[in-house]
Amino acid sequence: MATIEQIQHFFDTEFAHSNIVIESISPRQSTIRRSVTERDLRPGGTVSGPFMMALIDASLYATIFGELGLLVSAVTTNLTINFLNKPSSEVDVIAKCNLLKLGTTLVVGEVTLYSEGKLEPIAHAVGTYSIPKV
Amino acid sequence: MATIEQIQHFFDTEFAHSNIVIESISPRQSTIRRSVTERDLRPGGTVSGPFMMALIDASLYATIFGELGLLVSAVTTNLTINFLNKPSSEVDVIAKCNLLKLGTTLVVGEVTLYSEGKLEPIAHAVGTYSIPKV
Amino acid sequence: MATIEQIQHFFDTEFAHSNIVIESISPRQSTIRRSVTERDLRPGGTVSGPFMMALIDASLYATIFGELGLLVSAVTTNLTINFLNKPSSEVDVIAKCNLLKLGTTLVVGEVTLYSEGKLEPIAHAVGTYSIPKV
Amino acid sequence: MATIEQIQHFFDTEFAHSNIVIESISPRQSTIRRSVTERDLRPGGTVSGPFMMALIDASLYATIFGELGLLVSAVTTNLTINFLNKPSSEVDVIAKCNLLKLGTTLVVGEVTLYSEGKLEPIAHAVGTYSIPKV
Repeated sequence: MATIEQIQHFFDTEFAHSNIVIESISPRQSTIRRSVTERDLRPGGTVSGPFMMALIDASLYATIFGELGLLVSAVTTNLTINFLNKPSSEVDVIAKCNLLKLGTTLVVGEVTLYSEGKLEPIAHAVGTYSIPKV
Repeated sequence: MATIEQIQHFFDTEFAHSNIVIESISPRQSTIRRSVTERDLRPGGTVSGPFMMALIDASLYATIFGELGLLVSAVTTNLTINFLNKPSSEVDVIAKCNLLKLGTTLVVGEVTLYSEGKLEPIAHAVGTYSIPKV
Repeated sequence: MATIEQIQHFFDTEFAHSNIVIESISPRQSTIRRSVTERDLRPGGTVSGPFMMALIDASLYATIFGELGLLVSAVTTNLTINFLNKPSSEVDVIAKCNLLKLGTTLVVGEVTLYSEGKLEPIAHAVGTYSIPKV
Repeated sequence: MATIEQIQHFFDTEFAHSNIVIESISPRQSTIRRSVTERDLRPGGTVSGPFMMALIDASLYATIFGELGLLVSAVTTNLTINFLNKPSSEVDVIAKCNLLKLGTTLVVGEVTLYSEGKLEPIAHAVGTYSIPKV
């Protein structure tokens, strides 16, 4: 199990410009946020898909790290994203993750993304991570 | 909006042998159950994938009907299922549905399946339904 | 590696009423067909989703068996289906499978379904199978 | 229908630093490539997931534009990605797209990604795009 400080340090070091802040880590769950920069915008005042995917991936890693430690060798094998509502370009995006299965070889989790302060989610994703044998 | 009795009647009439019982319908959510018959079993004492898919589909339709009425012309366009744990062949399977988006042309919802009495889910699905223009 | 006769025998024995016929097995690919019975129909003269899912699953298993032998302990972990066009209730459904990855622990394949004699596919699926350690 | 020059101009203008080159556009199909920059690398000498997602999305848009013109109001509603093999950080990534359905309200397509010069794909994706009513 990794602490919130260890996970934050990992993202600050390995993904230096990702602007990710870990808000909370609890058993099988986490909440993280990412601020939107000029670079992440799309024509029409919305937020890019890859910005959201990077946040979804970070959200699942953070939650897995909270359970299993800084398991940097875990790899994403499958990711399904449903884009639900147009994100706001003016507020942070919040990711809430919930692990559905914590197996010995596969971990499956879901992530819901919100524009901060909004009730309706902007995206929902389910991802599978393969945990390497030690 | 359709009542629980109307939705139950729909399944009893249109899917006569599906053994589906609507337990509850509330805004954007539903719980339904399906009993496992000899026909639904697989070698090794488990429950077939198509049994689970039919239950997932029914669960999403029931929740959409609860919101929009008996909209039988809605069609499934996309379904992603993650199989998480081996189902029990000896108890009913429970489906809990939560709509993620209730749009005018697309509805997206997630369904979690449990073998009755167990804490860990056996499957999780996300489905998209296309709502025809009147 | 299993022969077409061995795979056909497996389906005839283990899925007695599935009406599945293996047409061809080649490296990483297969073509199988399933006839539509009264039981598989839906109101409006179409074919049920679970009928298609069972065919997709059989198609992926047949192709994996062709590569790895009758590996009955392989389990479906993830399945994404896109429903593309309304199937005909009057002709067989054909499934063409193509394996995208044949790993030691995970196999990923895609399946395209056609109503026999039609050019446009009725559904497309991608599935992941976990291969147990011996 | 948009020409290859129009589509290239669109990406150069709207996604200025995306390093995307349209190689070919044909009915329902396209091939595009993206060069890997320092920014797209991950620890361990691989390519980031969001890099691949951006390429997948561009590949589907390019193919849709080839069929329907520069329909910039099309929006991604669903994307499923399977990560198959570790990408090389030293060569371009090639995306081959094939549209599975070209409907009036929904377009569904698949994309296979390759590290240039390699036979095995590094990722496969299926995406759905909603086409707005004029």
